[in-house]
Amino acid sequence: MQLMDGSFVAQQIKEELAHEVLTRKSKGMKIPHLAAVLVGEDGASLTYVSSKVKSCEQIGFGSTLIQLPESVSQSQLIEEIEKLNKNQDIDGYIIQLPLPAHINEKAVLMHVSPDKDVDGFHPECIGKMALGMDTFLPATPAGIIELIKRYQIETAGKNCVVVGRSHIVGMPISLLMQRNAYPGNATVTTLHSKSSNIKEVCAQADILIVAIGKPGYVTADMVKEGAVVIDVGITRVADDAKKSGFRIAGDVDFHSVAHKCSWITPVPGGVGPMTIASLLINTMKSVQLKEK
Amino acid sequence: MQLMDGSFVAQQIKEELAHEVLTRKSKGMKIPHLAAVLVGEDGASLTYVSSKVKSCEQIGFGSTLIQLPESVSQSQLIEEIEKLNKNQDIDGYIIQLPLPAHINEKAVLMHVSPDKDVDGFHPECIGKMALGMDTFLPATPAGIIELIKRYQIETAGKNCVVVGRSHIVGMPISLLMQRNAYPGNATVTTLHSKSSNIKEVCAQADILIVAIGKPGYVTADMVKEGAVVIDVGITRVADDAKKSGFRIAGDVDFHSVAHKCSWITPVPGGVGPMTIASLLINTMKSVQLKEK
Repeated sequence: MQLMDGSFVAQQIKEELAHEVLTRKSKGMKIPHLAAVLVGEDGASLTYVSSKVKSCEQIGFGSTLIQLPESVSQSQLIEEIEKLNKNQDIDGYIIQLPLPAHINEKAVLMHVSPDKDVDGFHPECIGKMALGMDTFLPATPAGIIELIKRYQIETAGKNCVVVGRSHIVGMPISLLMQRNAYPGNATVTTLHSKSSNIKEVCAQADILIVAIGKPGYVTADMVKEGAVVIDVGITRVADDAKKSGFRIAGDVDFHSVAHKCSWITPVPGGVGPMTIASLLINTMKSVQLKEK
Repeated sequence: MQLMDGSFVAQQIKEELAHEVLTRKSKGMKIPHLAAVLVGEDGASLTYVSSKVKSCEQIGFGSTLIQLPESVSQSQLIEEIEKLNKNQDIDGYIIQLPLPAHINEKAVLMHVSPDKDVDGFHPECIGKMALGMDTFLPATPAGIIELIKRYQIETAGKNCVVVGRSHIVGMPISLLMQRNAYPGNATVTTLHSKSSNIKEVCAQADILIVAIGKPGYVTADMVKEGAVVIDVGITRVADDAKKSGFRIAGDVDFHSVAHKCSWITPVPGGVGPMTIASLLINTMKSVQLKEK
């Protein structure tokens, strides 16, 4: 078994981007600038956003954190978004999800300009991705693709099983893994809550990608000997042994599964850091697209 | 074995739409108007377009056929498209594909307003479909979904295998069959030219949808007893016995396969007529969306 070390690869990507920033600076070119909008004070959301902002600072990107109160109205939030759309200095921005219950998430995300949607959630981005056109890929699926590429995992003709059909991970990674490209060209089966024979189908996967948010869901009996296992789960589980009172758990029962795999992503330190790296890649891409 | 009779269902849909047109007329409401753009003089394309225009006339829709010479430039074609986008009377329009080699099909289709794209090819339409939002569904996949619905075929938890990953059929029908809705909630596997074990995977399908354009590709050994088989193939094959010199052949070897199926679509008279019915449904929908 070998680890697909997302922390290591993400660090590598950050160094490459930092180098690119320096080159751009020396040539007097625009420095990429990422903004993040955070509504309310949810602890997990604050942690994620802070980590994104910190990553920008590490590599020399500009970054702006816009914090809005939990009580912000939908129209006020949309106003902020319109400002970001118009702001020439902002190359990309993200709205940290989830939003408070009184705000219609889908309606809000429709206002994000597809040109600055570095999360790749806008229908136009998803549609372009599905049609194999150049666009911002959604950050987590893009991170998985990058990880597969950097570890040179063979995908063509492989049996790839995706567990989960969420709009931000399962659905897009299914499309990316079956597109005519590398990584891609896999035979993809997507499993979800209405699927039967989940165990049997998983056990046939050469590449198993799990994104359902159920800690420890995938056990050794569901994994084929030699499979590549990619764990997208990132759930906070109560843990008295930790100072924070919780630990981060993946969807895969790592300890029982790992020894059967050829490659496996750990949690934390697997797909998570790659998601942030994708955001940074998309932000750099946004600047470069404007220069074309 | 029972036939999924696309000609019959399409006729039923046309009658429903014709009835709706009469109701709208009596209330002084707008009558749907579909335009079709045909470039060049390819025989098959002319047949398809004419059949679409004729269908409009049958049910009382307005219709306009715009014929442009093979030599039309890309910018002239885009000019025509912009006119259609602005024309308030046109509720929807289609660009008959394929376009001549000197025209960049993707670039042209990007100019079709998503609000009038009743073929559902625009990235925004595809993206909205993928995200479960209300939009024009691409006509052929929408026709398959409608056929499944009218014949009350159970899909939830079924093993659905889609052969082909084209942007206009395979990819979108894969997404529709796995979405959380009826028809949908199937466990979908998509096969393509890089897949291995195609025969074995097909033979496990409860619902087999074939869209690769290879006449007679699916044979009896690839079909499970009791499967639902949907044949999207529609290829012209030379046939001296026919006055036209050709016959229309599906991707499924109907004669060997039919007796194993619970349901099967014939070719012609299966998915083909449903594609036109979907176009008409989308055009009616376009009018109704504007009234919301």
